[in-house]
Amino acid sequence: MADSLELVKEISVTSPTRIVFLVIDGLGGLPHPRTGKTELETADTPNLDRLATEGICGLIEPVGPGITPGSTPGHLAIFGYDPVKFNIGRGVVEAVGIDFELKPGDIAARGNFCTVDEAGVITDRRAGRISTEKCTELCRLFGEVAVEGVKIIVQPVREHRFVAVFRGKELAPEVSDSDPERVGVSPKVVTAQQAKARRMAKIVNEFIAQAGKILARQHPANMVLLRGFSRHPNLPTMPDVYKLKPAAIAYYPMYRGLARLVGMQVLETGTSIEKEFNTLKQNYNSYDFFFLHIKATDSAGEDGDFERKARVIEEIDRALPVLTSLEPDVIVVTGDHSTPAVLKGHSWHPVPILLYSRYCRPDKVERFSEPACISGGLGRFPATQVMPLAMAHALKLTKFGA
Amino acid sequence: MADSLELVKEISVTSPTRIVFLVIDGLGGLPHPRTGKTELETADTPNLDRLATEGICGLIEPVGPGITPGSTPGHLAIFGYDPVKFNIGRGVVEAVGIDFELKPGDIAARGNFCTVDEAGVITDRRAGRISTEKCTELCRLFGEVAVEGVKIIVQPVREHRFVAVFRGKELAPEVSDSDPERVGVSPKVVTAQQAKARRMAKIVNEFIAQAGKILARQHPANMVLLRGFSRHPNLPTMPDVYKLKPAAIAYYPMYRGLARLVGMQVLETGTSIEKEFNTLKQNYNSYDFFFLHIKATDSAGEDGDFERKARVIEEIDRALPVLTSLEPDVIVVTGDHSTPAVLKGHSWHPVPILLYSRYCRPDKVERFSEPACISGGLGRFPATQVMPLAMAHALKLTKFGA
Repeated sequence: MADSLELVKEISVTSPTRIVFLVIDGLGGLPHPRTGKTELETADTPNLDRLATEGICGLIEPVGPGITPGSTPGHLAIFGYDPVKFNIGRGVVEAVGIDFELKPGDIAARGNFCTVDEAGVITDRRAGRISTEKCTELCRLFGEVAVEGVKIIVQPVREHRFVAVFRGKELAPEVSDSDPERVGVSPKVVTAQQAKARRMAKIVNEFIAQAGKILARQHPANMVLLRGFSRHPNLPTMPDVYKLKPAAIAYYPMYRGLARLVGMQVLETGTSIEKEFNTLKQNYNSYDFFFLHIKATDSAGEDGDFERKARVIEEIDRALPVLTSLEPDVIVVTGDHSTPAVLKGHSWHPVPILLYSRYCRPDKVERFSEPACISGGLGRFPATQVMPLAMAHALKLTKFGA
Repeated sequence: MADSLELVKEISVTSPTRIVFLVIDGLGGLPHPRTGKTELETADTPNLDRLATEGICGLIEPVGPGITPGSTPGHLAIFGYDPVKFNIGRGVVEAVGIDFELKPGDIAARGNFCTVDEAGVITDRRAGRISTEKCTELCRLFGEVAVEGVKIIVQPVREHRFVAVFRGKELAPEVSDSDPERVGVSPKVVTAQQAKARRMAKIVNEFIAQAGKILARQHPANMVLLRGFSRHPNLPTMPDVYKLKPAAIAYYPMYRGLARLVGMQVLETGTSIEKEFNTLKQNYNSYDFFFLHIKATDSAGEDGDFERKARVIEEIDRALPVLTSLEPDVIVVTGDHSTPAVLKGHSWHPVPILLYSRYCRPDKVERFSEPACISGGLGRFPATQVMPLAMAHALKLTKFGA
């Protein structure tokens, strides 16, 4: 699929057309045991159904059949990036998750505050799950600590969790974790997994030693554990590959961070579906690609709340005229993965997709639902192909070959 | 797809759920010219149809569209191994076909007893198709012949065919065939195709010279021809990749051997469908994955016996309650390839598949047949994806990425 990015980059052109991706997080579902209908089938969605009737439908596989995607691979795939090739490290995902603006070259690690005894042996890997306020206060103690000219930025995440970002020249992420992932032992000395990472290992160990001193009187949070060292992935950006001017409308930090990693402008917006749609309207003339992300469906699915997920879908449907009245050249409605309420979590099931454009070849689907999409004209296909399809329908791809 | 095995290995976990693969050899068919119905459509299959109604259906491509698979690639694909990447050599297939227990490092060659004249020129490549009894008797003459400390085991296959297995340290399979595949010439001197195979070439030539002496008085079977030198493929095993405890129920040596190559425990069973299903029942609590292989459908197809193939399918359907009453978490019913009676052989046509689990997203298919499966929810997909799908539905795969 990297090849596919290369190919698309070669033939993509700028044009005055506009594309809107409405990404309904965890959209796909499973039948309710009583009714035999999924969340999407249960919801009353006249506006989505009209788009499905006039457009073309199908089912996407974010990573592959049987593979349950995390939110990062699910979204990367929709934006055209092979999520297995571009597998983004733990530390980076954590940094992105707090909306931290990672720069190319930065290396991020996921951190825990933990408790060690007088002998330095770990007695609690989570320091008694200190409050987020306490975590924030402790992170401030680090100020802008530096080791060998490398700036180390420590930012709170939630409870005992934080992110440590190492910013400097020629840093390598190929170092081992300090977190032994069990109690009764000392934190591990960080070692280089490749020769070029020797300096980084030294820097990290020196940082950990300093952290021990800074936290000495902060029992139970008197030490740190670090893992998942990873570098800003330096993804080819959407402006570069697709020649788009893309904007993201999302209020959860994680999705804002991901959008930034692929080169989108992240817009200020509110936390309701209505406010997100209004942000689209207000900024419609300034960009030619919009990623509009709705989180509440996934949250309801994760909570196992079938009814709430169906109601959120209905709320999206009611807001849809704000989007359609802008008359985008291409509208794509899909999700990053399925989150069936009956499974209370992400799942491997393929995700319904609807593509609307004046140039699509309509199928017989008249209802936006999982069973209807099975017989849609797009069939069942890898999510990485959504971007080329959308670009083509927006007349933003020229002919390949002579 | 090697990457896919790697990916699945990373996210697979052990769980108390059970998976049963019912593999109906040569399942797919073609319409009877008179009725317009395939073997599967002709058969009365109420139990399979009920599973199809409650489960999800589709069509699998064992190797790829238009490619007719042998039994080895057909099965490897279903077990999740890319059959093009893991192309198992002729010698190994022959050894596996007689249920010979190959060890890692072993090199197997396919052998013919042949006839040579006084000048050593081949006059019959098959030694007049000697009987299997005669072949067995001749193989015994070799005892456990050894060259340069390498043990050479000669085992009968059928008629003039045998297997020669070279067992020793650091043997290389990169040597040419001695079989010129025509008469009127002498057997070819075996040569090394890579430097590291020079010793092997010497060993093989020395073995052939000894064979000439051993067989000198055995006209018409007075020489051997060897080809298809290949090594035990050292496949990543199913216990390793999938963390399963898998068992095979099959009575044909070839399928038992294949199952062993991928790390399954091969169970003792009888030669009837009923006995195979009973073996499943008796061993159900001791394993978490079962490969239940039915051969008779393929044999009927190869014989061009449309009616017999349909009757075998009905017999399987009648036995099915033995399987379903065990209530496996996931049931997959499919074949390794199609064997349409009208073609009297394997064919390239995709194979119907049915997946039943409480977590599958049902489609509208109510009949297990080739035309019904076309509109199934699984669509038409590579057979290598069957295992990830089955694993996911058995909740044996964790999330990929954060």
